[in-house]
Amino acid sequence: MPNKRVMLTGDRPTGKLHLGHYVGTLKNRVKLQHDFETYLIIADLHMLTTKNTREDIANTTQNAIDMVLDSIAAGIDPTISTFYLQSAIPEVCEINTLFQNLVTVPRLERLPSLKDMVRDSNKDEMPYGLLGYPVLQSADILSLRATMVPVGKDNLAHVEITREIARRFNHLYGEYFQEPDSLVGEVPTLVGTDGKAKMSKSLSNAIFLSDDSATVRKKVQSMYTDPNRVHADIPGTVEGNPVFIYHDAFNANKAEVEDLKTRYRAGKVGDGEVKEKLYHAIESALNPMRERRAEYESQPGLIENIILEGTEKTRAIVKQTVFDIRKQMGFTAVTNQLRRRVERELKKKSNDAA
Amino acid sequence: MPNKRVMLTGDRPTGKLHLGHYVGTLKNRVKLQHDFETYLIIADLHMLTTKNTREDIANTTQNAIDMVLDSIAAGIDPTISTFYLQSAIPEVCEINTLFQNLVTVPRLERLPSLKDMVRDSNKDEMPYGLLGYPVLQSADILSLRATMVPVGKDNLAHVEITREIARRFNHLYGEYFQEPDSLVGEVPTLVGTDGKAKMSKSLSNAIFLSDDSATVRKKVQSMYTDPNRVHADIPGTVEGNPVFIYHDAFNANKAEVEDLKTRYRAGKVGDGEVKEKLYHAIESALNPMRERRAEYESQPGLIENIILEGTEKTRAIVKQTVFDIRKQMGFTAVTNQLRRRVERELKKKSNDAA
Repeated sequence: MPNKRVMLTGDRPTGKLHLGHYVGTLKNRVKLQHDFETYLIIADLHMLTTKNTREDIANTTQNAIDMVLDSIAAGIDPTISTFYLQSAIPEVCEINTLFQNLVTVPRLERLPSLKDMVRDSNKDEMPYGLLGYPVLQSADILSLRATMVPVGKDNLAHVEITREIARRFNHLYGEYFQEPDSLVGEVPTLVGTDGKAKMSKSLSNAIFLSDDSATVRKKVQSMYTDPNRVHADIPGTVEGNPVFIYHDAFNANKAEVEDLKTRYRAGKVGDGEVKEKLYHAIESALNPMRERRAEYESQPGLIENIILEGTEKTRAIVKQTVFDIRKQMGFTAVTNQLRRRVERELKKKSNDAA
Repeated sequence: MPNKRVMLTGDRPTGKLHLGHYVGTLKNRVKLQHDFETYLIIADLHMLTTKNTREDIANTTQNAIDMVLDSIAAGIDPTISTFYLQSAIPEVCEINTLFQNLVTVPRLERLPSLKDMVRDSNKDEMPYGLLGYPVLQSADILSLRATMVPVGKDNLAHVEITREIARRFNHLYGEYFQEPDSLVGEVPTLVGTDGKAKMSKSLSNAIFLSDDSATVRKKVQSMYTDPNRVHADIPGTVEGNPVFIYHDAFNANKAEVEDLKTRYRAGKVGDGEVKEKLYHAIESALNPMRERRAEYESQPGLIENIILEGTEKTRAIVKQTVFDIRKQMGFTAVTNQLRRRVERELKKKSNDAA
């Protein structure tokens, strides 16, 4: 059996996932996990480039647990996919520090995504670590020797930096890294329940994968629809109407959706019925997730353990990469030996103390 | 007995030390080591910001050993001062990565020293890691909780970055770091034997601390002096004359130096005599160094062991700093616990395998 290619994907731990995440990336990951050896990074070090208060960091643990539970509920299978916590693998920081000399400042400054990232803040206040976001990302990808990285179009340029760093490394020190490929998905964005922008926790227009039925019903009932339809007998617009966008995304009964659209356009259906049917469609999508969630939630510490074991497995791989690349870079037997001896001595002391 | 303040100083491992290093920094360190708890970094990660070929890295070990041996020969006492190899302490890279979000790009770009560092290269080719040089330096200083950093005037601004990072950290996460003070020495530069620029290995105008007597004599005999003095009876210029600069720096017999200067100005002494006496003066400075060197060289592995033990001691301190600051930053009990468990599991496996 040929080895599957290694794929790295993941998110910053900003909290519970919603339907927007589901149609945007999660659904795709659930599918891809069978084709690739899949690693899902909980990128808390990346979070620090833009959110780094004590509170942000303290929330990481619960956010990570929520995210992993949501992902598993949505269909990520923890027996074949590996979750790991970035900050629990300090060797990634070492690779990050080594890679920092393999890319130039002007190259990073030219990235269009950087402009987006600093949009909200003043360019004069751009942290040094934010400019180096793609370097740390390269450390994540290459430390796992991942060769497949699913990205949205906006982030294609980041993986290009990773490819350049891999090339530069291979050029300076001899072939080691394989340049990763990007898997460009369209990453569809889902409109919020308020019809504005995209679904986002911070905009309070999200239906979470973990919402209970009563909450989902309430959120669907208060959804924004066609504002001109003050009565059910006024013909309405289907295109761009959040209720129908959601029907298209979640209602498996395509005939029902077509029927509702026809009657909506003709002013022959009330919002109430459209929403009630949407509620049931979303519930059909969420119910199997709830079952899986309940199964995992019933075992205290199970999610923590999944993160722990995944991180352990991942760290062993990253440690091997550090070992390999130090050797390849020319750190000599003596410096490597010194390093191992220091490690051994400290270990011995900590064992003696225990 | 009150604790001494911690001082961090050191160099990139570029090779053997010469008389220029001796008068510039080494002599001062020999004195300071009694007033401070002294750490001497072998800054090989910093070297990578400007020299990062496989050959550069492979030379690090021998260069580090040469540097430490030279320092000890010159009077650094390894029983009271601590040498350590930066790249053997990966936790420094972790602190580096965490600190990268505590300073802005424009702040780093404004540093005058940066302009000097890129003088030789094109600004368009400035590596990202070179811009972050003062961040990694801050990680070195603060990871040891050093409060005293001897610097040349040019590098004063670097320590200012360290102070700002310490302040920013304390502001965000609560008091932890003490802002380090700079100890501005004049760091006198010594002219080369060719009379040009400053003494430097790459200019082939250096007398090394490890040169033998015959080599020193040869180098002194071929030193550049007053070019107008084609005969010994022509009055010569003492000011700016390398031979007399060296006499002032190394000849303890001030009366002899004054006598030579007077006769030189009057055209009453040959270059040969001036140089012969300089040779003896330099030999008087180098001879005790040679004795100490011989003592250490006679014990194979001794220098390696000094670096090893120093690195071990230093790494334990840095590990404690990482532990402290992660806690202070808000990494919760769970993430910290996760990290420790991962460490323990991997340790267990590597012990089982051994």
